[in-house]
Amino acid sequence: MDPLRFVRPDVVALEGYVPGAQRADALKLNTNECAWPASPRVAEAVQAVVDGLVRYPDPLATALRVDAARHYGVTPEQVLAGNGSDDCLTMLFRAHLAPGDVVAAPDPTYGLYRTLAGVQGARYVGVPYGEGWAVPDLAATGARLALVAHPNNPSGTLAEVDALRRLADRLEGVLVVDEAYVDFAEAARGPCSLIPYLGAHPNLVVLRTFSKSFGLAGARLGLLFAHPALVAQYAKVKDSYNVDSFAQAAGRAALADTAHHRDVVARTLDERARLAAALAAFGWTFPDSDANFLLCHVGPDAERLYRALGDEGVLVRWWSRPDLRACLRISVGRPEHTDRLLDALRRHGAAG
Amino acid sequence: MDPLRFVRPDVVALEGYVPGAQRADALKLNTNECAWPASPRVAEAVQAVVDGLVRYPDPLATALRVDAARHYGVTPEQVLAGNGSDDCLTMLFRAHLAPGDVVAAPDPTYGLYRTLAGVQGARYVGVPYGEGWAVPDLAATGARLALVAHPNNPSGTLAEVDALRRLADRLEGVLVVDEAYVDFAEAARGPCSLIPYLGAHPNLVVLRTFSKSFGLAGARLGLLFAHPALVAQYAKVKDSYNVDSFAQAAGRAALADTAHHRDVVARTLDERARLAAALAAFGWTFPDSDANFLLCHVGPDAERLYRALGDEGVLVRWWSRPDLRACLRISVGRPEHTDRLLDALRRHGAAG
Repeated sequence: MDPLRFVRPDVVALEGYVPGAQRADALKLNTNECAWPASPRVAEAVQAVVDGLVRYPDPLATALRVDAARHYGVTPEQVLAGNGSDDCLTMLFRAHLAPGDVVAAPDPTYGLYRTLAGVQGARYVGVPYGEGWAVPDLAATGARLALVAHPNNPSGTLAEVDALRRLADRLEGVLVVDEAYVDFAEAARGPCSLIPYLGAHPNLVVLRTFSKSFGLAGARLGLLFAHPALVAQYAKVKDSYNVDSFAQAAGRAALADTAHHRDVVARTLDERARLAAALAAFGWTFPDSDANFLLCHVGPDAERLYRALGDEGVLVRWWSRPDLRACLRISVGRPEHTDRLLDALRRHGAAG
Repeated sequence: MDPLRFVRPDVVALEGYVPGAQRADALKLNTNECAWPASPRVAEAVQAVVDGLVRYPDPLATALRVDAARHYGVTPEQVLAGNGSDDCLTMLFRAHLAPGDVVAAPDPTYGLYRTLAGVQGARYVGVPYGEGWAVPDLAATGARLALVAHPNNPSGTLAEVDALRRLADRLEGVLVVDEAYVDFAEAARGPCSLIPYLGAHPNLVVLRTFSKSFGLAGARLGLLFAHPALVAQYAKVKDSYNVDSFAQAAGRAALADTAHHRDVVARTLDERARLAAALAAFGWTFPDSDANFLLCHVGPDAERLYRALGDEGVLVRWWSRPDLRACLRISVGRPEHTDRLLDALRRHGAAG
């Protein structure tokens, strides 16, 4: 008996999401994690959790919601925690999309959006970015759910806040603004998050993650911000104990250590500037990045360099799709990481 | 604008799953967690993880899969890890059920099965247990997915292995045997897991959890065992980084400490016997339990006792549904927990 005969045919046909390679021994500049470790307070908080592991975690992560609400200037009823912001995305797809419904996003963007559409049986419409990475008109797609990464991945570019607000007004559906990397943008530009506009747009959802600027990718923690009536619906479709006790404690400790967070973000911007200057000297170009990575236009050498770097344990991201195959996406590392990357690139003939 | 107009109507109508109450200051005998803490090796393993939190976890939890495969006598390709076995259930519902498909389980059983059916838009059919908690014929429902908790929650009763195998043969779908509590059964009765029969039934899936006998409810870790072709499909519909670095390390440490695990399970069986004798002296009856809880038939006093216990911080489980409203489900605690429970029950007039 073929066990696949019992699996949904659209799932069998589905191409799963492929995360960036994980290799313990490599210099990982391929998945935009934080270049510096999390707050030292996290270790203490985690140790305190071990004795309580025998108990289920708080299903709603109440203490974390309260802390996050204070930190971001909203009410706890506007906040929900997820097992990474990927889990928050799963809640959104489950709550809003029946089979065949349209979900739309600018293209190219975070590949998981398309995968989740397939898992939910929804129809994914990618609308090409405009000139200068301007957010295209997603309302014309009739989307029940529209997603904009702000800043965008893989381009690192930031949308205009006003453009996103106009999009929310025009959509006959919900607008999700995925702010995984927005801390890096705000440190350079000042306020550009959509969180302050939640009250003005009941169909607006904002996502944050602890995997980037907070250095907690391994802990799996994301936050969702939305109208309390929507948050209550998402809570019904989430896994009941979705965020474990470690992540709840680690997130609270990381939020509380604002000095550490500010320092890590500032160091990342400094190192991004140094990395950008060095890569520009190769003749490479990239959009102005508001995130902790650069989408470098390398030319026909991109795939060869990607493989040569990988062979010596330096991981960057490359995609075979036609519009990106001349590009490499490189995460900002610590200064010594940048040195190792640049040395490897020069040895493999990247210098222009 | 009403934000709910963008939510799937079946989700708005859905009653979310209500987990047992979580209260930090209470004696928790309501959610069948472990009465004793996890292996001391877990604390060391977790501490070692903190420094690596800046990196994403292994998306497939490879080292844990390899350890678990060795421990349970299967191949790593037959194993997948989840953020609790609830996450494994989510993968199963996503992979097998299109809207309107039938999912069946004996009734009463773990309430999350019904909730997940609603989330997936599937049709849930609960088939009453037979005399003596015999597993009913689920094949007649035409289920694409049939679930049997083995032992069952809330009855604590074990199915016959041969009956489950015959059910797998007859189903035009997949049989999920949820073995959350099976370690307690095997310690008393010897082998009764379905894992050894995976090779004989390509449509059989077995679930395990670290929330019960391993004392790691707060870490969120479950395992799914199935035919490698099915495991590959489930991996496509799971969240990409679904199990965090803490849980992967904690699970490996807990699996490795077999002496601790055996000791905790043996203590639980001893204390279950003492608890059962004391509750029987109240005139209460319960099915023979193969799990770490007792489903006590209390009579018309059940709700009053549930509330009186709760008022003084002793949590047990009670449901308002007609067939269970005369019952209390009580988790096995440590000896001092049993003493406190019995004292409270006597003071509130439970003694027969």
